[in-house]
Amino acid sequence: MSDIYQDALKLHAEAKGKLEVQLKVPLNESHDLSLAYTPGVAQPCREIAQNKDNVYKYTWKQNSVAVVSDGTAVLGLGDIGPEAAMPVMEGKAILFKKFGNIDAVPICLDTKDPKEIIQIVKAMAPTFGGINLEDISAPRCVEIERTLIQELDIPVFHDDQHGTAIVVTAGLLNALKVVGKKVEDITVVVSGTGAAGSSIIKMIHTLGVKEIYGFNINGIVTKEDYDQYDFLTQELTQITNRQGKRMTMAEAMCEADVFIGVSAPGLLTQDMVKSMKAKPIVFAMANPEPEIKYDDAIAAGVTVMGTGRSDFPNQINNVLAFPGLFRGALDVRAKKISEGMKLAAAKGLASLVSDEELSPTYVIPNALDPRVAKVVAAAVAKEARDEGLARI
Amino acid sequence: MSDIYQDALKLHAEAKGKLEVQLKVPLNESHDLSLAYTPGVAQPCREIAQNKDNVYKYTWKQNSVAVVSDGTAVLGLGDIGPEAAMPVMEGKAILFKKFGNIDAVPICLDTKDPKEIIQIVKAMAPTFGGINLEDISAPRCVEIERTLIQELDIPVFHDDQHGTAIVVTAGLLNALKVVGKKVEDITVVVSGTGAAGSSIIKMIHTLGVKEIYGFNINGIVTKEDYDQYDFLTQELTQITNRQGKRMTMAEAMCEADVFIGVSAPGLLTQDMVKSMKAKPIVFAMANPEPEIKYDDAIAAGVTVMGTGRSDFPNQINNVLAFPGLFRGALDVRAKKISEGMKLAAAKGLASLVSDEELSPTYVIPNALDPRVAKVVAAAVAKEARDEGLARI
Repeated sequence: MSDIYQDALKLHAEAKGKLEVQLKVPLNESHDLSLAYTPGVAQPCREIAQNKDNVYKYTWKQNSVAVVSDGTAVLGLGDIGPEAAMPVMEGKAILFKKFGNIDAVPICLDTKDPKEIIQIVKAMAPTFGGINLEDISAPRCVEIERTLIQELDIPVFHDDQHGTAIVVTAGLLNALKVVGKKVEDITVVVSGTGAAGSSIIKMIHTLGVKEIYGFNINGIVTKEDYDQYDFLTQELTQITNRQGKRMTMAEAMCEADVFIGVSAPGLLTQDMVKSMKAKPIVFAMANPEPEIKYDDAIAAGVTVMGTGRSDFPNQINNVLAFPGLFRGALDVRAKKISEGMKLAAAKGLASLVSDEELSPTYVIPNALDPRVAKVVAAAVAKEARDEGLARI
Repeated sequence: MSDIYQDALKLHAEAKGKLEVQLKVPLNESHDLSLAYTPGVAQPCREIAQNKDNVYKYTWKQNSVAVVSDGTAVLGLGDIGPEAAMPVMEGKAILFKKFGNIDAVPICLDTKDPKEIIQIVKAMAPTFGGINLEDISAPRCVEIERTLIQELDIPVFHDDQHGTAIVVTAGLLNALKVVGKKVEDITVVVSGTGAAGSSIIKMIHTLGVKEIYGFNINGIVTKEDYDQYDFLTQELTQITNRQGKRMTMAEAMCEADVFIGVSAPGLLTQDMVKSMKAKPIVFAMANPEPEIKYDDAIAAGVTVMGTGRSDFPNQINNVLAFPGLFRGALDVRAKKISEGMKLAAAKGLASLVSDEELSPTYVIPNALDPRVAKVVAAAVAKEARDEGLARI
């Protein structure tokens, strides 16, 4: 076992859980109990019974998020079950607190039935200000998220789909400035069309990218092969590969200004990079090793290179998105997280890199940059208000 | 609005929720993220995937409880819904932390269907070390609790049923010492046979009380009238009113050594008290006013008087039971909370009043006594081990 795994195991055993609950009111004297519990607590109860919206005013709903998983797609470990998913959900919860000052609670569910997961999350919704879905396998995750967005009046967000998409979009906006290209002029190859890949394709399409080629294990996504895909990939046939080309990824790369990988280590060769248009942009986010190694990409002529790793420049890390996104949504008691709010998050994130700072090795803020969540939250809250999705 | 209600409302508005989540591990540097989140977190995930019991070792399951309600029987307010129940569940959660050092989370459910509540709690169970059911209306609460106890391998406990029973039993044990009577010799009248009353009847029956008369809105509970009752009251016909007497509460009180009220203010008259056996014991716990006023009871000759109120001696307060009970159960990773563990909690609680301290006005420890949870926890943990219900 590597040192980091041994150290992580030790940390988890010693911490006895990575999060805890703490009181925000005193409970030292009998009078304290009379206010925080009976008989005083009856009054906020009555005020909420009269007007449900008061639940935001008097309870933690204004600042709480449930981190919900069924443990079917945990990290790269796959379907390991709800118990084994707990350390990840606890980790997510403390990231919520640390970066977004949000009180997040892990909820790992012992069911894989999408209908049951939807029903359970709907039933729990009064308790929380938002729902973060996590590590639920595709395409079930999309069905679950879409239904919940439709049926609930609190933000529901599946981070595995849209978190990466937001950060990639932010990075792409800044990378295009570095290489002096416009969104509408570029061609993008996306390797991997699962939860994250399909959300990336949709978001950069919304952003204005006109030509996108999506690749998965069956090769290039085309309208013609529509029938062979699940509903998630079918949707992509509407916004990718406009001319219905049949080609290998190597062939597609000859047209590409940008490569975005959420697939598997080693899929991108130096030869493919060399065949790209001038000043290539590569975001290679396969874990634990990217689609092309950082040094190999640079040697092959990549101008802006990003990965999922913290030990190289331009780390595409979801923690840059979800804390600020939910912070902004909770701040205005948003009823949902819209496409516009996600795009606002990406643009807000991108704006943190000033023109003076901008460089090939700095198109994305650092994951630990304390300004990030605030700027993202402000952009998201403004957009929610502009779209009429805010309660306050 | 009374001062206490105004102050409580102000406290709730200013606190913005009475509980929060806090980190137990650092997240300041990139290395911290590598241990608490990816990639390090994969290792505890793997260990749990290999052996589910490791979820206790590496996550907050070892110390967490869900406080679950559907908002159908909140305080004396009735069926006010899941949102309006939130202040009470948050209050409960902070009592868990303050007195039991347990991380409790409110879960208010937007469904009243017992089957659905059972299904949801079962699905959430991997996340928590225990389930505290709260403010669910009778007799649904009993059906829900029993099914969950049977089907889950973590402690499930409905405080409204058994919390009061445990504290009443503790108080009764000490009160009997004060008046010099034995459990097996006494006759007890219990006014109220709902969730709390029926649990009290069962617990004092288990304790050894031979003659118990149960009264509800239809009068005395008898075997003969079996058919007219719900299943909960039906069970009581087996352990109360052995001779099947038909009588009023006033008539029953002439035989009574002890009156236990979980019913309605004013039901017990001074004349009834005067007709009781020598050295009467009265626990009158109706809210907000007891079945007989404290001073009226004393004037009528009650020797040991207890109420639910903090402004009189011998306060019967559930907070004396549930934090220590769950603390003990979690300490040994108990698979359930048995009748024996509840009785052990009552005896542990009673033992905190020493023979020297024991007096008519001190048969129950103070609700804020910091020794309570520890002593109760130790008694509960020992009993769990003795019964083979402990994992460690």
